[in-house]
Amino acid sequence: MENFRRESDLLGELLVPADAYYGVQTQRAIENFRISGQYLFSYPELIRGLAFVKKAAALTNYELGLLNEELFLKITETCDELINGKMHDQFPIDMIQGGAGTSVNMNANEVIANRVLEKMGKNRGDYQFCSPNDHINLSQSTNDAYPTAIKLALLQMNETLVDKVKKIVLAFREKGEEFQDVIKMGRTQLQDAVPMTLGQEFEAFAATLEEDIEKLNNNANLFVEVNMGATAIGTGLNAPLGYAERCAGNLAEITGYPIVSAPNLVEATPDTGSYVIYSSAMKRLAVKLSKICNDLRLLSSGPRSGFYEINLPPMQPGSSIMPGKVNPVIPEVVNQVCYKVIGNDLTVTFAAEAGQLQLNVMEPVLSHAIMENNQFLCNALDTLREKCINGITANREVCLNMVRNSIGIVTALNPYIGYKNATHIAKEALETGNSVYNLVLEHQLLTREQLDDILDPRKMLQPHKL
Amino acid sequence: MENFRRESDLLGELLVPADAYYGVQTQRAIENFRISGQYLFSYPELIRGLAFVKKAAALTNYELGLLNEELFLKITETCDELINGKMHDQFPIDMIQGGAGTSVNMNANEVIANRVLEKMGKNRGDYQFCSPNDHINLSQSTNDAYPTAIKLALLQMNETLVDKVKKIVLAFREKGEEFQDVIKMGRTQLQDAVPMTLGQEFEAFAATLEEDIEKLNNNANLFVEVNMGATAIGTGLNAPLGYAERCAGNLAEITGYPIVSAPNLVEATPDTGSYVIYSSAMKRLAVKLSKICNDLRLLSSGPRSGFYEINLPPMQPGSSIMPGKVNPVIPEVVNQVCYKVIGNDLTVTFAAEAGQLQLNVMEPVLSHAIMENNQFLCNALDTLREKCINGITANREVCLNMVRNSIGIVTALNPYIGYKNATHIAKEALETGNSVYNLVLEHQLLTREQLDDILDPRKMLQPHKL
Amino acid sequence: MENFRRESDLLGELLVPADAYYGVQTQRAIENFRISGQYLFSYPELIRGLAFVKKAAALTNYELGLLNEELFLKITETCDELINGKMHDQFPIDMIQGGAGTSVNMNANEVIANRVLEKMGKNRGDYQFCSPNDHINLSQSTNDAYPTAIKLALLQMNETLVDKVKKIVLAFREKGEEFQDVIKMGRTQLQDAVPMTLGQEFEAFAATLEEDIEKLNNNANLFVEVNMGATAIGTGLNAPLGYAERCAGNLAEITGYPIVSAPNLVEATPDTGSYVIYSSAMKRLAVKLSKICNDLRLLSSGPRSGFYEINLPPMQPGSSIMPGKVNPVIPEVVNQVCYKVIGNDLTVTFAAEAGQLQLNVMEPVLSHAIMENNQFLCNALDTLREKCINGITANREVCLNMVRNSIGIVTALNPYIGYKNATHIAKEALETGNSVYNLVLEHQLLTREQLDDILDPRKMLQPHKL
Amino acid sequence: MENFRRESDLLGELLVPADAYYGVQTQRAIENFRISGQYLFSYPELIRGLAFVKKAAALTNYELGLLNEELFLKITETCDELINGKMHDQFPIDMIQGGAGTSVNMNANEVIANRVLEKMGKNRGDYQFCSPNDHINLSQSTNDAYPTAIKLALLQMNETLVDKVKKIVLAFREKGEEFQDVIKMGRTQLQDAVPMTLGQEFEAFAATLEEDIEKLNNNANLFVEVNMGATAIGTGLNAPLGYAERCAGNLAEITGYPIVSAPNLVEATPDTGSYVIYSSAMKRLAVKLSKICNDLRLLSSGPRSGFYEINLPPMQPGSSIMPGKVNPVIPEVVNQVCYKVIGNDLTVTFAAEAGQLQLNVMEPVLSHAIMENNQFLCNALDTLREKCINGITANREVCLNMVRNSIGIVTALNPYIGYKNATHIAKEALETGNSVYNLVLEHQLLTREQLDDILDPRKMLQPHKL
Repeated sequence: MENFRRESDLLGELLVPADAYYGVQTQRAIENFRISGQYLFSYPELIRGLAFVKKAAALTNYELGLLNEELFLKITETCDELINGKMHDQFPIDMIQGGAGTSVNMNANEVIANRVLEKMGKNRGDYQFCSPNDHINLSQSTNDAYPTAIKLALLQMNETLVDKVKKIVLAFREKGEEFQDVIKMGRTQLQDAVPMTLGQEFEAFAATLEEDIEKLNNNANLFVEVNMGATAIGTGLNAPLGYAERCAGNLAEITGYPIVSAPNLVEATPDTGSYVIYSSAMKRLAVKLSKICNDLRLLSSGPRSGFYEINLPPMQPGSSIMPGKVNPVIPEVVNQVCYKVIGNDLTVTFAAEAGQLQLNVMEPVLSHAIMENNQFLCNALDTLREKCINGITANREVCLNMVRNSIGIVTALNPYIGYKNATHIAKEALETGNSVYNLVLEHQLLTREQLDDILDPRKMLQPHKL
Repeated sequence: MENFRRESDLLGELLVPADAYYGVQTQRAIENFRISGQYLFSYPELIRGLAFVKKAAALTNYELGLLNEELFLKITETCDELINGKMHDQFPIDMIQGGAGTSVNMNANEVIANRVLEKMGKNRGDYQFCSPNDHINLSQSTNDAYPTAIKLALLQMNETLVDKVKKIVLAFREKGEEFQDVIKMGRTQLQDAVPMTLGQEFEAFAATLEEDIEKLNNNANLFVEVNMGATAIGTGLNAPLGYAERCAGNLAEITGYPIVSAPNLVEATPDTGSYVIYSSAMKRLAVKLSKICNDLRLLSSGPRSGFYEINLPPMQPGSSIMPGKVNPVIPEVVNQVCYKVIGNDLTVTFAAEAGQLQLNVMEPVLSHAIMENNQFLCNALDTLREKCINGITANREVCLNMVRNSIGIVTALNPYIGYKNATHIAKEALETGNSVYNLVLEHQLLTREQLDDILDPRKMLQPHKL
Repeated sequence: MENFRRESDLLGELLVPADAYYGVQTQRAIENFRISGQYLFSYPELIRGLAFVKKAAALTNYELGLLNEELFLKITETCDELINGKMHDQFPIDMIQGGAGTSVNMNANEVIANRVLEKMGKNRGDYQFCSPNDHINLSQSTNDAYPTAIKLALLQMNETLVDKVKKIVLAFREKGEEFQDVIKMGRTQLQDAVPMTLGQEFEAFAATLEEDIEKLNNNANLFVEVNMGATAIGTGLNAPLGYAERCAGNLAEITGYPIVSAPNLVEATPDTGSYVIYSSAMKRLAVKLSKICNDLRLLSSGPRSGFYEINLPPMQPGSSIMPGKVNPVIPEVVNQVCYKVIGNDLTVTFAAEAGQLQLNVMEPVLSHAIMENNQFLCNALDTLREKCINGITANREVCLNMVRNSIGIVTALNPYIGYKNATHIAKEALETGNSVYNLVLEHQLLTREQLDDILDPRKMLQPHKL
Repeated sequence: MENFRRESDLLGELLVPADAYYGVQTQRAIENFRISGQYLFSYPELIRGLAFVKKAAALTNYELGLLNEELFLKITETCDELINGKMHDQFPIDMIQGGAGTSVNMNANEVIANRVLEKMGKNRGDYQFCSPNDHINLSQSTNDAYPTAIKLALLQMNETLVDKVKKIVLAFREKGEEFQDVIKMGRTQLQDAVPMTLGQEFEAFAATLEEDIEKLNNNANLFVEVNMGATAIGTGLNAPLGYAERCAGNLAEITGYPIVSAPNLVEATPDTGSYVIYSSAMKRLAVKLSKICNDLRLLSSGPRSGFYEINLPPMQPGSSIMPGKVNPVIPEVVNQVCYKVIGNDLTVTFAAEAGQLQLNVMEPVLSHAIMENNQFLCNALDTLREKCINGITANREVCLNMVRNSIGIVTALNPYIGYKNATHIAKEALETGNSVYNLVLEHQLLTREQLDDILDPRKMLQPHKL
């Protein structure tokens, strides 16, 4: 039993690995929650978030005279170590736990307390010198410290995601420019419509994703409102007057995010509205990405029996049986990530709705779902950009031929021959296989010069001058 | 005030239209619940379900000596009137209400009581002669009568749905036969794969939907287990011994469904498991239908820039601006119904999860979501069959040309020249535009006779003889 | 056949009721789409939206010299009639249709054209004088006119919804003030936590819903960006240069909303991102409302075996079997509406993801789901406010007694006796049934004076002075 | 470069770790798909499934004379090694990939081929002696081998899940027996209803979960239908006649599951209906589990301000700030797993709907979502049983007192004094605080003897004798 030390809590004694910085409550959580096989240490932003919270709380307590200088300095040092990526392996709790984050908060409290004890030359577990509850958690409750840490994690993670969205927007935009003179048929309802350029199509991909940068940032911005000082239920019991605002200010200074104290802490404590709408913004991104990937797969369908307007870079042999087949595997994997994101958004919805009275106890799964979506989307965006978008090429001849053969160009004749006449031409073209051009001439509706001018595909790509 | 009569309940007096069969509690519900604008009377199967329940209860009470013969006979007569579609306008309550169905049950109790009073020559509201609670609701509670009525409604509605599935299976099967010699390219991952017939494709649509007939019926079969006799919470308080089984037996006789009493009434009363899985079966049907409609839209894409293997019957001019455009509007509307069905299935999931302790109070929205899905799916199936499937035609030449030009047929060479050689041929075909046939000859891998035999598309439609 | 007139289109002739303002394409849609039993005319804001679009288009066409003054004036007059609620019965198409809104757009085009013909003294159907396609739809496509009309409808509907949210916020706030001195136990994880006031709890309901006013408005604000001038696929084919911006400006003037032209019309035409996130904002409101209703039901549970802190106004006898029972029927119905809203949000997600290439053809079901949610939420909010919140009363004695008997007040002792000692007291209180107060005295941890001061519940309602 | 070997495929050369059994295509997949951080090797049942497939295919090919004895024996040996858990670390591909499982199938083909080569004394990569495509994948395609392997995995995983459901049913049942004489108030709509026993409540938990055993098994049973022999698109190209049935028979023999060949292979290949409905059955289990956990949290609410009918075993100190607080952390974590399961079911729905034409390319995420749900549910069920249910105790006095004080017992008087009189008594009891018992005596509605008999709670627990 040399490798273990004995710690105790409300429920009694428990053995903890002798060299662990974490303590009895973390140990209980390890044993209680064997659920998902996904652990706190896989989300470094969350551990950083916890460290930010503990650092700001210590500073505030010190400023208010509740914590002595030695403890303040040593706690601060330890938090900085965590912020810099140290000791993350000391956070081995399952991401999905009961207890509304108490285990997570106590894990941070215990790791910091024991590391401080070490710095003080004391033994781990000698909590009379530095206690997880009385010193590290001073003026706090899980119910304020934990959601604040999550919000700080999500602020960091949103920055990463937005960065990747920006990069893929650029990648689509570059392709938009590269393809600006590739004339092709536009399609509505999967039926031939009127001409456009492949460049317009790719620029539209860029433009639609670009809108999500602001949408993500705006909604992430809700996370700057934190409930430090709320303690158990938002009434601030055991927190000194002024603690809430001062702690928020300190968090702002420490993290660089414009953190503020929520205007109503009783409301803020159980509220999960910011998670719900931020998750929705991620879902919106997923919906758009999925639509784009569907389009990429359609446009590259073929090679002989599909649209075949573009080529995706081949990433792997497409089939274990069909030689030479190359499949759109990268858009496919991104579609799948999008379905996962949408599924996780539903998990968030359920978890949010399950809040009761003064707390939402489902925050662990709620925040895990958002964090998983963040990681999946970041990976998917990089993969899509690097392994697909950047290497797309156009089949210019294929595109142009479809315009030349199309019936949809008859639309451009409406202003000259009317919708009804144009309808007759279109119908005849479909039935006979004859071209619109020839039929208009045949019916003597317009002269060849007029037709050449009106049916020039390049003129169909924008509004006409009056 | 001549057109109203006065009735009272626990909460006091209320005016009810003088000629209404319904009474004070229905009146309260009309005023309390102005929510969805969709009313009980739009679901005749539900009103029939209520009438079946009240008829079976009256018979059981009469058999057990709790109800006199006059009341029994008149209640039975009235229930038969409801079963035959009479007085359905007397059920004007919103489909979505609070109270776990109490208003619905009382609506039935009141309508029947007042109609019986009328038959007895009494005034409406003279409930001492025939009381909604003491006579019509005798030995029952909303908590057994209401879910039983829903289940009887769903049993009827499932029959209608299954009938429509059967009809569309036949329609697809007929097309499968009609197209059995239309050779075309199969596609996997939207990339050309190997040849098949359009008939095989349509027969597969038939076969996949056919499986859902059994699935729907098996899951609807869970509805035959009812909790009559459970009264308030399943303990059977106020119901006489033997009532539960006898009432179930009477229901079986009256309805023709193999109704049985649930083995554990305390479990059966709050349980919504049968709804959840039946709704899932409807969702499965929707998922399959949506996939089929997606396929129909893909296969009919074009006419010049798409797959264009089939033609859907034109149902309306496709565009207010593009003359001659015809769109796949029927598959489109069916896709949309499918999304609605999936959304309603989520409503069912939420409502089911919200059950608490001895009751699930969310049954009104839960059952409404299922019933709406039933109506939407029935309409969509008929629309799809009559206005689309039956009129589909094949573009045989287009289909055949894609096979002739395809690279995918190289797959058939694997057993003769190996996957690796076949890969080289495929790659060269793609890069040069040359045909597989010519390249194999050029590389002297096989003789012309061998090739003609192996590459005969008709031989690729099934396993080969050894 | 006197009661019908004959009209024709691409597909041939069809009979239309002689006195109908709508024409052949509306008639086809009536026959093609018998799906949901919910019709355009149930959504007056949508018909007003269509009229706004047609009015702005006519004005723009007139300004650009494309439409003569007579037609311009008569079209404008007719649109004003529609805006004022006239002729809405002429929009009998099912809300869920295929064709990406073509039927809806043509319904508006036909109704306006025939009403203009009437004003001109011409017969209905004499479209050479005023044509649905060539005049009413001039410079437009369904693909710009229809989504613009939807967005204008949603802007109107959002105003109604926000108004109702504002009213319920006030109702909760008033109760918050009324209950500001009702001391009660707060609960986290359904376990007794620390004291608070019932006023704080109700003010938190107000505060959390108040946040959704801005959230709804911000997201609805995305709808001011319209794609008029995009025509079929966003390239603006057949629309004159400058039409897009001018038409947006005219729409702004006509509607009073700050309508602008989307910066990239090719992107804007298939994009459904604004719907997705606005639907999410409605879902967020539903999630919050559902949580509040869950709380109201918990707090009013009892009367003898529950929390029983508040009384909801009784709305109906609660049971057909249990006399005197009164149930929380209004929160129950609101919960159910919330589940419906969440289900419809999933329908929106599916419909949005299904967009393909230059159009999203699923807009009918997508917009219907949002509009249904709007109506359901508006009804639910009014019902909840008028029939529940306004009449809630507090059981002050019950609330106070729970605080007096509670163990949770031990929390306030942490700063004086430490978390560990406080834990021992709490444990002993739970095991012996003795009060915290007595035990602290017994163990001589604090004096009676200290205790009286620290355990004064009113002092536990906010942070303490240092 | 000594530690790598060179392999090549359609796309060119690539370096593979020299000692890896996997080859070039696995290597590509490792590099292409860095998505979820969850790998094939975490799902041993899936690797076993692949090994079963390859073993059955080899046997069938051998029986049909397509494979020589040496290869057949060595492939069989290798598959048995995989089945016995060897070499699972050779399956390092991300669970979510594009390519419809081609990478997974090729991973198995490559590992087996190289292990066979090793057994033959050949070098890894010397595929002319034993080729991943020509020998291991002989008569197969990814499109039949991969889904068959998934189905075999799910059959195994379902057995584990069902076993855990069975165990928790027993645990609830034992508690049901232990609590069979604990009389308590039943509640409907969170309002006091009528008496029942805590035993009835727990037996109902057992009974409702017990139903899901059959439901899971019935739906898992759909997985016995496999599409081996379908090859690329179900037409069986390159598979010899009779292969499909023979291979299914061999799979049945090897696995012990009653595997059969799907009746229509063209239908079976893209169809995901069995996954959809099995996932629904898991969702149903989750919905029920979540409802039960909600109930457990309600019943244990308190200790002083809640229902407090039962005690859950304390698993950890409940709060970092509130001493002595013990929270229902185990039901809480199970609720969260249930929300995850529901979210994953939506992922399945999206993935299933996205099937196109002859294949559903989204099977990787679809099967991953189901497998994750399986693992999460298995863990949750064990956790709930071991760490919660088994240790639940009843607060008998609390339960009994609530019955004694209740108004709901007035229901038992209906048959004696009528619903209307009973209503008056109930109302007076609520308003005055007086007991039902006293009020009935006071109003001389029944004698004391009658009352003592009727109001005996034990008589209210079941139907009465006539």
